[in-house]
Amino acid sequence: MLPPFLFCQDLGSTGGPPRNWKGICIAMVVILGVLSLVSLSIILLTPDESHLLLHSRLTVEDLESEEFKVHDPCATWLNGKGSTECTHSDVQKYRALLVTPRLFTVSLLCQMYVFENDIYYKADVSSPAMRLTTTEGLVVNGLTDWIYEEEILQKYPAHWWSKDGARLAYLKINNSATPVMEIPYFLGGLYPSNVLYPYPKAGSSIPLVNLFVVNLYGPAHTLEMIPPDSQNSRDSYISMVSWISSTRLAVRWLNRVQNQSVLCVCEATTGACSEVRKSTEEPLFSADGSQFYLTLPAKQGACGEFRHIASLPAQPALPSASPRFLTSGNWDVTTLCALDEKNGKIYFLSTEESRHSRHLYSAELGGVFHRHCLTCKLFERCSFFRADFSPNQTHFTLYCLGPGVPKVTIHSTNDSSRDLTTIVYFYIWCSLLFFLLPRTSMYILIFLSSSLSHSDGSPGSQTVTEEFSLGWPQVLSSLHGVSLAWVDGRIRASRGQKTSTVDPRKLGSLRIKDQLGVVEWLSQLPYIDGRRIALYGKGFGGYLILKILTATEQMFRCSAIMAPITEFKLYNAAFSERYLGLPGKEEHAYMTASLLEDVHKLKDENFLLLHGTADARVHFQHSAELLSRLVKVEANYTLQLYPDEGHTLREERSIQHLHRSLLHYLHNCLKHDPFLVAEEEEEEEED
Amino acid sequence: MLPPFLFCQDLGSTGGPPRNWKGICIAMVVILGVLSLVSLSIILLTPDESHLLLHSRLTVEDLESEEFKVHDPCATWLNGKGSTECTHSDVQKYRALLVTPRLFTVSLLCQMYVFENDIYYKADVSSPAMRLTTTEGLVVNGLTDWIYEEEILQKYPAHWWSKDGARLAYLKINNSATPVMEIPYFLGGLYPSNVLYPYPKAGSSIPLVNLFVVNLYGPAHTLEMIPPDSQNSRDSYISMVSWISSTRLAVRWLNRVQNQSVLCVCEATTGACSEVRKSTEEPLFSADGSQFYLTLPAKQGACGEFRHIASLPAQPALPSASPRFLTSGNWDVTTLCALDEKNGKIYFLSTEESRHSRHLYSAELGGVFHRHCLTCKLFERCSFFRADFSPNQTHFTLYCLGPGVPKVTIHSTNDSSRDLTTIVYFYIWCSLLFFLLPRTSMYILIFLSSSLSHSDGSPGSQTVTEEFSLGWPQVLSSLHGVSLAWVDGRIRASRGQKTSTVDPRKLGSLRIKDQLGVVEWLSQLPYIDGRRIALYGKGFGGYLILKILTATEQMFRCSAIMAPITEFKLYNAAFSERYLGLPGKEEHAYMTASLLEDVHKLKDENFLLLHGTADARVHFQHSAELLSRLVKVEANYTLQLYPDEGHTLREERSIQHLHRSLLHYLHNCLKHDPFLVAEEEEEEEED
Repeated sequence: MLPPFLFCQDLGSTGGPPRNWKGICIAMVVILGVLSLVSLSIILLTPDESHLLLHSRLTVEDLESEEFKVHDPCATWLNGKGSTECTHSDVQKYRALLVTPRLFTVSLLCQMYVFENDIYYKADVSSPAMRLTTTEGLVVNGLTDWIYEEEILQKYPAHWWSKDGARLAYLKINNSATPVMEIPYFLGGLYPSNVLYPYPKAGSSIPLVNLFVVNLYGPAHTLEMIPPDSQNSRDSYISMVSWISSTRLAVRWLNRVQNQSVLCVCEATTGACSEVRKSTEEPLFSADGSQFYLTLPAKQGACGEFRHIASLPAQPALPSASPRFLTSGNWDVTTLCALDEKNGKIYFLSTEESRHSRHLYSAELGGVFHRHCLTCKLFERCSFFRADFSPNQTHFTLYCLGPGVPKVTIHSTNDSSRDLTTIVYFYIWCSLLFFLLPRTSMYILIFLSSSLSHSDGSPGSQTVTEEFSLGWPQVLSSLHGVSLAWVDGRIRASRGQKTSTVDPRKLGSLRIKDQLGVVEWLSQLPYIDGRRIALYGKGFGGYLILKILTATEQMFRCSAIMAPITEFKLYNAAFSERYLGLPGKEEHAYMTASLLEDVHKLKDENFLLLHGTADARVHFQHSAELLSRLVKVEANYTLQLYPDEGHTLREERSIQHLHRSLLHYLHNCLKHDPFLVAEEEEEEEED
Repeated sequence: MLPPFLFCQDLGSTGGPPRNWKGICIAMVVILGVLSLVSLSIILLTPDESHLLLHSRLTVEDLESEEFKVHDPCATWLNGKGSTECTHSDVQKYRALLVTPRLFTVSLLCQMYVFENDIYYKADVSSPAMRLTTTEGLVVNGLTDWIYEEEILQKYPAHWWSKDGARLAYLKINNSATPVMEIPYFLGGLYPSNVLYPYPKAGSSIPLVNLFVVNLYGPAHTLEMIPPDSQNSRDSYISMVSWISSTRLAVRWLNRVQNQSVLCVCEATTGACSEVRKSTEEPLFSADGSQFYLTLPAKQGACGEFRHIASLPAQPALPSASPRFLTSGNWDVTTLCALDEKNGKIYFLSTEESRHSRHLYSAELGGVFHRHCLTCKLFERCSFFRADFSPNQTHFTLYCLGPGVPKVTIHSTNDSSRDLTTIVYFYIWCSLLFFLLPRTSMYILIFLSSSLSHSDGSPGSQTVTEEFSLGWPQVLSSLHGVSLAWVDGRIRASRGQKTSTVDPRKLGSLRIKDQLGVVEWLSQLPYIDGRRIALYGKGFGGYLILKILTATEQMFRCSAIMAPITEFKLYNAAFSERYLGLPGKEEHAYMTASLLEDVHKLKDENFLLLHGTADARVHFQHSAELLSRLVKVEANYTLQLYPDEGHTLREERSIQHLHRSLLHYLHNCLKHDPFLVAEEEEEEEED
């Protein structure tokens, strides 16, 4: 039987007691209702193909039409065993209310909630709320602050229920000593207002973090998990918390500059934590907590190191036990998805098929290097997957993310080839519009970081994948015949471990070298005009472009740069210190990385600079410092500001304006050249 | 004998006792030293005329060269009678230290000083300082706050010594209830900082103002001057304070919306003030305080009303006494300069010669309408004058401000035609480079407000005068043959009184009509191409341009708009309420005046928008509101920001960048037109 699943758009979350037949029935009725509505909408929305004849190219208007909106089913497995597992959808929904302006006010989570930075607990809907934490000032319990959300945990909740729902682990993040950033908001009021939030810039005090576990059976009882001696709680981060059993947690502490990471097992009953391994990866633990699986670099002959699945005993007494590898080959395991001890299997995503693909595999826990691909021959034009397993590992939701039109299907682990879904989400029209890059293009636009990727082109992330995307770059390609190239440069993910042994402090300059190399190679392609190359980058990608422009001389026709980092001292401590170390100590690294000293080299470069004035990630301050220097050297640039917009634009009209500005600017600058036009006209005349 | 005068660049101020021969001797020695230095520099700087052959046109580099800097002699009459009169130069010098950021900290004035918003008094250099005022919070004594400095008194000091130095009148400006504006400063620090200052926006609480007089002979004794019953001190301004005698003051109170003004005479010994006249002009009082002279509108036949000199008794008992006029004619008296009771003369500037000129005249106090022009035939190419009389009216410093090269000379009132100066300040080169507007130009740039004028093109000010100016507009004319036109529209000054009777609430729309009329007339001139007209405006002038652009359709090739007011509710109370009344009460006026509702009409207009992010007068908020709407309608504009710069740019490099940006943008847009270029080429070929 298909376990129930939930649509975040339609339903709130419910956590019923075991075999609550009444609850299940109600859920089924609701689900059937939704199913029939969706089926109806499929019929109603089935495209009238007569349009397609008129619509052979992707336009920016297509992107803005309702039909092209991504329908994220946001399906989540409900734990049928009465646990207090919360659905992802709730977090998403309430987060949306919280993000702008970030005031840390109200978040409602299933059976529990965080209100004004404190955690409250309700055993059920009718029981009174019990306050679990009491705090003052800039302290937040159970939720992340800015730096934990954006750089460390990369999610908003910072609390974890034990599997039996008897205990709750949560972070207490204390920003009393962290300097406060003020973002001016200009619109709507008689006077502009400021939004304040703790934001540690490189070298400033970072938040003090503590991990607590509260026992909810009987009178509430809270215990702090004591970090191992090697970690100073004042200058460290907690980057992972995960329940292994009902009383044991796996916790990872990171030092401030993030080059030392310690995986610990903590006893929730005593608060004692013991180091099990220095590691940076996310492990899967066996049900009894005695064994854990994680990916570790393994030498593969002359090809260097690749990440493979390793099994290790979770015994604090054996921190140096040597790992047993379950996979092997010249490819990386990118994600561990699920551990099915009952059937002796582990599920994972890897790059075995191609560096740009992510297929779902299973491997035997007891076997030797044997693996089985579940998705390789499943669908056409699907090679970039994400999988979400049900708690008992009997089913999984499969997200086909590209390169074809994304879709979501549900499968049984017994017979993964059969699609159990009756609902298939898809983009109307897209499959017919999807196109290849025009090989005859004269122009090329190079992305140093994709605006579509979450990562902002930060070191260690990968933007060149087979994930489906459809945005303004594709319009540029479809409508104006511009070739698109995404360049990753020297990255860790999916290229084996060889490059990750490089000193991270040098990543910036190495990436610039790499990217320049790729650009040179691209410009020599027979169908590319080396004089018509444009660049696009955002955040760290914008920084890379500006660095490249200072290192070259009018090599690129034009560049579009969104919200660039221009000075790492002004950027957040977690990021800047991870790659450059502590300012003061590593003053030279900061000086070398800074753009601001080299702005005079941008004088004759043609670029478009874009920034939202309320950007909470890369503050407008970065562009202000750049602008004041550009004014001094009388550089040739175009400026576009988005008042009160953040790092990611929110207003529909701003997004549309951004797309049009980029398309207009890039198309014009790649196309227009009085000399080239003259030459071409002459050629035409000769013909 | 020539009375002593002072150079602000070189000397501090001194106030000696009567007939302090030692002091006078020292002063003379210093003056002789300066004279010889200046004579030497004249010899050294005499231009080598061989350069001129190469330099026939004015370039932007010329403007930036040291040789083109204006040498303001800043000469000030010293009062030889032992008064405590302070020199203008000091105020200027110390003010420069105070302006950015505006923190109201330290100001040093002769014999007295204001420190941390309180007034201290030193009888002489060696005597101990005596604290005269004690304040808390946002209260300032003896100096202006933002709105008093920029809109009401238009100067920084707000204290006045009585003629015998025995009493000091000062304003106490209390901003406790005024909302505070925060200006973000982005540059230089790890975190951006905010500068706060009280700034009442339209409808907000304005500062509470009180006038006090402190008696410094004997034990210090302070008395408040009680406003007349018609003035509510909570909602009024004090716009003028002037000592008539050693114990009487002339004070003007203005109501909040500034359409009622009351001139009072106050007794410093009792604090009692009596209304003498409702008037808005600056009067000159006779030595005994019994009579005063001011300009009043006088009907001149069919030509309407013009401002002329009137004499009135300063008796509180006679507030409705009818004035006796000393001048008459179809021209305005613009400034009263000095009253010489001994010789029965009054000196004034008027527009008798031409609406754009300001010549110095004298009139008999007892005569009938007879006047004598002192400057009409004095110098060639000098018709715009300013005069500064010595305290005993025996001499005056004459500032020739244009249209030729400015110079400063000193004259005796007995024989004004003789120049007593041996020092003549002039611009090296300029006289030879001064040019006429090219009458054969195809292009025209129209200024709705000159960036060179103090007034920002505000209603009631005049920008079209014969005052000398040499800036980027003249470069555009000299180098690229662009005609320049400054348009004032419907203004009060120098056009008689006819237009001033118009409801000031309608000035905005009337000005737009006027200006459009002028532009249409200009575009029909035989040597002007009506398709190549550009506009430039700043502040209120920028507002007018945007209003004109919304009222027309692609009538202008392009426009450059600096720091425009876009919404009067966001602008300061004194200005907005003066022209539009109180928001709430006059909601319709504000709605009609607002630009923000009409931004969609700017969609197809081509303009350059410039703004300093730290503009304390027209906040960047105005442009932010405009930008957010321009983004929505996808308008075609170019943006240039000056980080941390104010309404007037301060950094030399920013000013240079501004000049170059304006020249580049205006030249390119006026010149470039593919269709016109084609036509012209065809014409050339035909020739």
